[in-house]
Amino acid sequence: MNYKENRLDFERRERIGFVEAIWGEHKTPKQIIEILSKFEAAGQFALVTRVDLPKSEKILRRFKAAKYHQEACCISFGSHPKVDESRGKVIILSGGTSDLPVAAEAELALRVHGVQADTLFDVGVAGLHRVLNNLERIQKADIVIACAGMEGALPTVLGGLIPQPIIGVPVSVGYGVSSDGRVAMECMLASCAPGLMVVNIDNGYGAAMAALRIIRLKSKG
Amino acid sequence: MNYKENRLDFERRERIGFVEAIWGEHKTPKQIIEILSKFEAAGQFALVTRVDLPKSEKILRRFKAAKYHQEACCISFGSHPKVDESRGKVIILSGGTSDLPVAAEAELALRVHGVQADTLFDVGVAGLHRVLNNLERIQKADIVIACAGMEGALPTVLGGLIPQPIIGVPVSVGYGVSSDGRVAMECMLASCAPGLMVVNIDNGYGAAMAALRIIRLKSKG
Amino acid sequence: MNYKENRLDFERRERIGFVEAIWGEHKTPKQIIEILSKFEAAGQFALVTRVDLPKSEKILRRFKAAKYHQEACCISFGSHPKVDESRGKVIILSGGTSDLPVAAEAELALRVHGVQADTLFDVGVAGLHRVLNNLERIQKADIVIACAGMEGALPTVLGGLIPQPIIGVPVSVGYGVSSDGRVAMECMLASCAPGLMVVNIDNGYGAAMAALRIIRLKSKG
Amino acid sequence: MNYKENRLDFERRERIGFVEAIWGEHKTPKQIIEILSKFEAAGQFALVTRVDLPKSEKILRRFKAAKYHQEACCISFGSHPKVDESRGKVIILSGGTSDLPVAAEAELALRVHGVQADTLFDVGVAGLHRVLNNLERIQKADIVIACAGMEGALPTVLGGLIPQPIIGVPVSVGYGVSSDGRVAMECMLASCAPGLMVVNIDNGYGAAMAALRIIRLKSKG
Amino acid sequence: MNYKENRLDFERRERIGFVEAIWGEHKTPKQIIEILSKFEAAGQFALVTRVDLPKSEKILRRFKAAKYHQEACCISFGSHPKVDESRGKVIILSGGTSDLPVAAEAELALRVHGVQADTLFDVGVAGLHRVLNNLERIQKADIVIACAGMEGALPTVLGGLIPQPIIGVPVSVGYGVSSDGRVAMECMLASCAPGLMVVNIDNGYGAAMAALRIIRLKSKG
Amino acid sequence: MNYKENRLDFERRERIGFVEAIWGEHKTPKQIIEILSKFEAAGQFALVTRVDLPKSEKILRRFKAAKYHQEACCISFGSHPKVDESRGKVIILSGGTSDLPVAAEAELALRVHGVQADTLFDVGVAGLHRVLNNLERIQKADIVIACAGMEGALPTVLGGLIPQPIIGVPVSVGYGVSSDGRVAMECMLASCAPGLMVVNIDNGYGAAMAALRIIRLKSKG
Amino acid sequence: MNYKENRLDFERRERIGFVEAIWGEHKTPKQIIEILSKFEAAGQFALVTRVDLPKSEKILRRFKAAKYHQEACCISFGSHPKVDESRGKVIILSGGTSDLPVAAEAELALRVHGVQADTLFDVGVAGLHRVLNNLERIQKADIVIACAGMEGALPTVLGGLIPQPIIGVPVSVGYGVSSDGRVAMECMLASCAPGLMVVNIDNGYGAAMAALRIIRLKSKG
Amino acid sequence: MNYKENRLDFERRERIGFVEAIWGEHKTPKQIIEILSKFEAAGQFALVTRVDLPKSEKILRRFKAAKYHQEACCISFGSHPKVDESRGKVIILSGGTSDLPVAAEAELALRVHGVQADTLFDVGVAGLHRVLNNLERIQKADIVIACAGMEGALPTVLGGLIPQPIIGVPVSVGYGVSSDGRVAMECMLASCAPGLMVVNIDNGYGAAMAALRIIRLKSKG
Repeated sequence: MNYKENRLDFERRERIGFVEAIWGEHKTPKQIIEILSKFEAAGQFALVTRVDLPKSEKILRRFKAAKYHQEACCISFGSHPKVDESRGKVIILSGGTSDLPVAAEAELALRVHGVQADTLFDVGVAGLHRVLNNLERIQKADIVIACAGMEGALPTVLGGLIPQPIIGVPVSVGYGVSSDGRVAMECMLASCAPGLMVVNIDNGYGAAMAALRIIRLKSKG
Repeated sequence: MNYKENRLDFERRERIGFVEAIWGEHKTPKQIIEILSKFEAAGQFALVTRVDLPKSEKILRRFKAAKYHQEACCISFGSHPKVDESRGKVIILSGGTSDLPVAAEAELALRVHGVQADTLFDVGVAGLHRVLNNLERIQKADIVIACAGMEGALPTVLGGLIPQPIIGVPVSVGYGVSSDGRVAMECMLASCAPGLMVVNIDNGYGAAMAALRIIRLKSKG
Repeated sequence: MNYKENRLDFERRERIGFVEAIWGEHKTPKQIIEILSKFEAAGQFALVTRVDLPKSEKILRRFKAAKYHQEACCISFGSHPKVDESRGKVIILSGGTSDLPVAAEAELALRVHGVQADTLFDVGVAGLHRVLNNLERIQKADIVIACAGMEGALPTVLGGLIPQPIIGVPVSVGYGVSSDGRVAMECMLASCAPGLMVVNIDNGYGAAMAALRIIRLKSKG
Repeated sequence: MNYKENRLDFERRERIGFVEAIWGEHKTPKQIIEILSKFEAAGQFALVTRVDLPKSEKILRRFKAAKYHQEACCISFGSHPKVDESRGKVIILSGGTSDLPVAAEAELALRVHGVQADTLFDVGVAGLHRVLNNLERIQKADIVIACAGMEGALPTVLGGLIPQPIIGVPVSVGYGVSSDGRVAMECMLASCAPGLMVVNIDNGYGAAMAALRIIRLKSKG
Repeated sequence: MNYKENRLDFERRERIGFVEAIWGEHKTPKQIIEILSKFEAAGQFALVTRVDLPKSEKILRRFKAAKYHQEACCISFGSHPKVDESRGKVIILSGGTSDLPVAAEAELALRVHGVQADTLFDVGVAGLHRVLNNLERIQKADIVIACAGMEGALPTVLGGLIPQPIIGVPVSVGYGVSSDGRVAMECMLASCAPGLMVVNIDNGYGAAMAALRIIRLKSKG
Repeated sequence: MNYKENRLDFERRERIGFVEAIWGEHKTPKQIIEILSKFEAAGQFALVTRVDLPKSEKILRRFKAAKYHQEACCISFGSHPKVDESRGKVIILSGGTSDLPVAAEAELALRVHGVQADTLFDVGVAGLHRVLNNLERIQKADIVIACAGMEGALPTVLGGLIPQPIIGVPVSVGYGVSSDGRVAMECMLASCAPGLMVVNIDNGYGAAMAALRIIRLKSKG
Repeated sequence: MNYKENRLDFERRERIGFVEAIWGEHKTPKQIIEILSKFEAAGQFALVTRVDLPKSEKILRRFKAAKYHQEACCISFGSHPKVDESRGKVIILSGGTSDLPVAAEAELALRVHGVQADTLFDVGVAGLHRVLNNLERIQKADIVIACAGMEGALPTVLGGLIPQPIIGVPVSVGYGVSSDGRVAMECMLASCAPGLMVVNIDNGYGAAMAALRIIRLKSKG
Repeated sequence: MNYKENRLDFERRERIGFVEAIWGEHKTPKQIIEILSKFEAAGQFALVTRVDLPKSEKILRRFKAAKYHQEACCISFGSHPKVDESRGKVIILSGGTSDLPVAAEAELALRVHGVQADTLFDVGVAGLHRVLNNLERIQKADIVIACAGMEGALPTVLGGLIPQPIIGVPVSVGYGVSSDGRVAMECMLASCAPGLMVVNIDNGYGAAMAALRIIRLKSKG
């Protein structure tokens, strides 16, 4: 098997307007370095997701243009557009410390595309006043990304309160029935609040790309 | 096989203080009539759950002392204690018309034990103001039974707002992922709100018996 | 239990900008007629979903202002805004005759909110040329709703071809492993195409409400 | 992302009468220390659950007011009310050595709220005489928390023997079909004994909070 | 396709000492009549399981040697050995009226093989005294077949009380989590009582054949 | 919590004729040593299952009377009855090297009860001639314990060939759909061969205890 | 929604060499008639699968060129190539009467493509001699399609005996754990016999198309 | 237990024309060395699958005739037939770096049987042009093995484009709903493209053996 045959496809995701993202979880540092070398040669920006600290250190040693974002467990490589507030604004809600990496991945993925994204912490349904107290701030955003583990009820509560697009991101935080995030995911899909949209469990990057597809409508309008 | 051997056990549930309940769903009218005849002979009260209208008609034709409760799909047979308000009060919350039979079964099962129980309709998390507007009334009850289908988030929201015992009853109402009530059940079990208790899907009777076990503490206090 | 207590909440969904939708599946014709009477009295528009033909006939006999949409299995009641093309355009893709009711429910739910929506039939991944031949037409829409049963791969293929928001609606069409739509749903959530959003199985109405939340950004832009 | 924004919400759970519990499982020692520092500053009591021995050592090095409860895998921080026997009594039943951490978490969580709680070991249905021999002792309690892994039949057997509130806690102990505690949980929910209540798998803390909600009725009575 | 090619295999199960059983559930009356005609021609005994009343009537009209056993939903055809008490004795325990068809199928399947089998009704774990009161009678049997729906805990309780072989038959009676008998089955497999054996849900015939395999050891001893 | 209260129950399983088995998997070496000390004091035999090599070494250092059986991952402690061939004979079939620990656990558990048990290796359905070549030897046993992972078809094939009691033990060996042994277990339960009995996944000890319950019939005969 | 827009795509499946198959299960007679009219106009052959008898009668009344195949529950419409034995031969194995419709669908689907296909009945693993007695006949075929419900072990046994391509078709026949065909499907996928291939549950048509893809290699050889 | 009894069965798989494959995953290096010694003594070729690097090193130290294939995680032992292009050609498609080991296992397993096999990388449905650009090359192969994780849609897309036999291999790559490869597997089984065949998750070896069964038809033709 000739692994060298493997060519990189810089036009691929760019055709639909996304920077190239490399899913780092199952790749060795060596494999990621090989891939980033091609981006280096082509002068392209790249985002590597799901990279833990030890793996990141091996990769950063090789590339000056690489930067590790510890909360998001991502490496950004090369230069990317500046955040342009006129394009619209995404707010990311996070239930607790445990949802942090997923929220941070979403925030970073939007920012490297030049879209303004902010995260609001400790917003969960068991402490409803935190949701209600922040409602005005939430309503100022164009799009809401709501990360939630356990029973995943946050997007449902929001869905009855605000008219914006809401993207639910189930998070694999919990134990017993909720340990793998599936309950949170199905809770969001089964919601009695109309018009919620859901992405895969822990898929902060996917939620960001969904928001990016949506925010472009604002400029078109 | 000699089916006649089958004897009734009037002391059984009474020993723990419950009237005898007969689960009518898989029984033929003939089987239910045979069982009720023994109650008649013994001068005992009985509650038959999960009886549909046609089945109830065949049974009521035979017994004068039987009464059909259409909303609860139950037959009560014989005389039972009057509701005694001093024993405490249970409030039953129901998300919508579709949860009605489950809520009604719980309400009836409490009343035939002499416990005051009232049902509050159309209280769901997607319309949060209905929950908040009724909060004072809910807080006046000793115990809350919260019926919810779809994503089943109602007990979670309540759990952060009130200190009473909350018994969640998942309801098999919905479609797609939520069609069999399992999502609602797991959502309640996975809840981030502390101290929720859950019974089987559609188990209005079970929630009532759980409330009955609890309400006795009040008299003991 | 006093069922009369049940009051209607006309402001509820309207606050977030949706017409009131009544889920007709588990309700009796009598229950639906009672609810619509309140809309009649209030001079409000209503949409009743999941109503089969025999049930619709009983309801239409009572109300002159009600109209049955057989393909969508919905009743619309009262007057609603006209479709305004300047607000944007949603295209709904349907894999085959069996997806029809879901696609039609989505189309109707958008039109009664005044949003232009058109359905394109027989677009499935096993006949890729149908997708590619219609690509230009699909790209002219602001939002794509892709209905798919069986393996549910249509949104994934689209996700690599177009930059618009894509809302996947899994459909409970198939047999064996795919009979309940769950495979299609998980396939959409697991997609390697970035930024897809998913709603509950057969939830054409939910997809429409998600699109409505998004399309408003265009006017805000 | 500005993690500093994260504020602590001391009133949150206290409003419903619970001390603040911090779920330690997915948090780093550094994150837990940061959170406890705020409690220290505010002079508040805290309970940190699911902390293993090595993690506890890093945290205890920093705080004098912290104490590690090895069997319960919890840290208590600060001072809490003394156990007041007049408030009522909870008995916790545990099937075997493997259920110990769950039972111990429940016992500790009740004691830091001032409620008397005792654990009775090696009580399982396969050794029925142990259950029957202890029946008198069990009946003296106001509330029973029954922890059980494997097939989880203990609460069912108790449910036919005693009239008290019974809270079943499924435990993730076993192998093959029962390895994750789901069989025990579903067995408790499906029980033919009326009025059992169930919490999430391994949720000793949740069972304690449920008991706390209930025991307050005694004082109100 | 030439369906006539289908030949009957009278030696098949007889080689292992079982009378031929025909699973009637998915077969038309016509198909069953065709099969029984071959047994008639060969002068063989047959047992047809899972035949409802209307289907049985069509079949009995054609064969004089056929007899319908309504409780067991079975047809016996031809002559079979008499029950021989010296071969040993099987006791079948049944939790309630709803388990009846499964228990009756097991009893009949043993009797047509000449093995003594009796059924004991209303023996369930929520009414433990019924189990304990009948313990002496149960212990006199060589083998126990325990049918149980809901949480299926009966075999577990027995397993700690008696040394005989215990065959658990999960029954698809219940609702919510237990509706299809799977919880009962997994509860039996996960049991903490050592040495229980389990057959498929509702498989009264299979439990009987398992008992038949075992009872032969007695004669061999 | 006073862990010292925990007393050992030597009569428990002995009442039903089993030596006491301690499930070692979730216990620390210290906990196992504490338990064995009580057996030592009482002069009782014990079997500790699911003990890995490092754990066993810590335990054996303390007890002279303990012996580690590496293939079976068990510790036997004290003296037990000699194998008595006149009591009957059990044959254990194992599909391959990976099923070894389960088969060895069953063999040891029978031998410490004085029952003859032998294991036959590499008997699987994909190599049918190995089954057929050994058929005579298999038929000489009184009971067959058939261990099988992957698709678990071995008991089914045997069920059509021999009249003895067959106890299927599903083994958690495989990958993809069969990785946790559930497919093998359900395959055995769903078998078209009549009269198979099944125990929990990897439950070699349970299969042995089931065989022990059965083999006693031979002596009674 | 303009349903008329829906055009038929005669080139679609023909490009890959298949006649057009219409899945009749969820379509009304009217919808099938509309579709067949287009085939009639185009002079094309069509195969309609999953049509029950009453539905078929409504369709046959309209078309002279339609023929109903009752065992296969299919309608063939128009003329198709004659069976050409030189192209190779497929043998279809069926475990029992209940697998008949699936086997018959596969046989018909091959014959309308001109491929010889024969079905062999009552070949199941619990009666191994039937498999072994027919081995020579099975080995003469180029491809084996093995239909099996219950535990689905037939393809595994064959896989160790013959070198031909084996396509397993799980059948939704059984009860309890095997009622929906999923156990049979997973058993085939998990098989220890190397090189089995599996299609969806009850997918006789799919197995035939897989065989058709393979048989073409013979002509190419 | 006498482990020495275990004999090797060189004729077994060879009778159906496969080299002997040893599944290395759950075996110790010592166990594999013992098995390979028998192959060495018999002068036979063997393929050991699922061997990681450290395990391989221990084994290679002992055998000169052993070779480790790191990408495929396999050891080949002894000499095997040369690749013979006239026998036909298999093309293996792989979606990304993470599918590599599965694709490499399939390629190696075919080559040691003398069949030409080549792997084409980075072919996935989200980058449809890569599929379309390589279509001509794919169509030149006799058989296509399509490896895919995530949503597993690649075989479906190919199924509508090419007439060759397509063997889908689901890969356990992904996260959330797709983490264990089950979604990819069910997506392939549920596919709307006719005639796809599926093997177990990650079963590269099985796909190769299926292709080997098929490719022989070419020589027979």
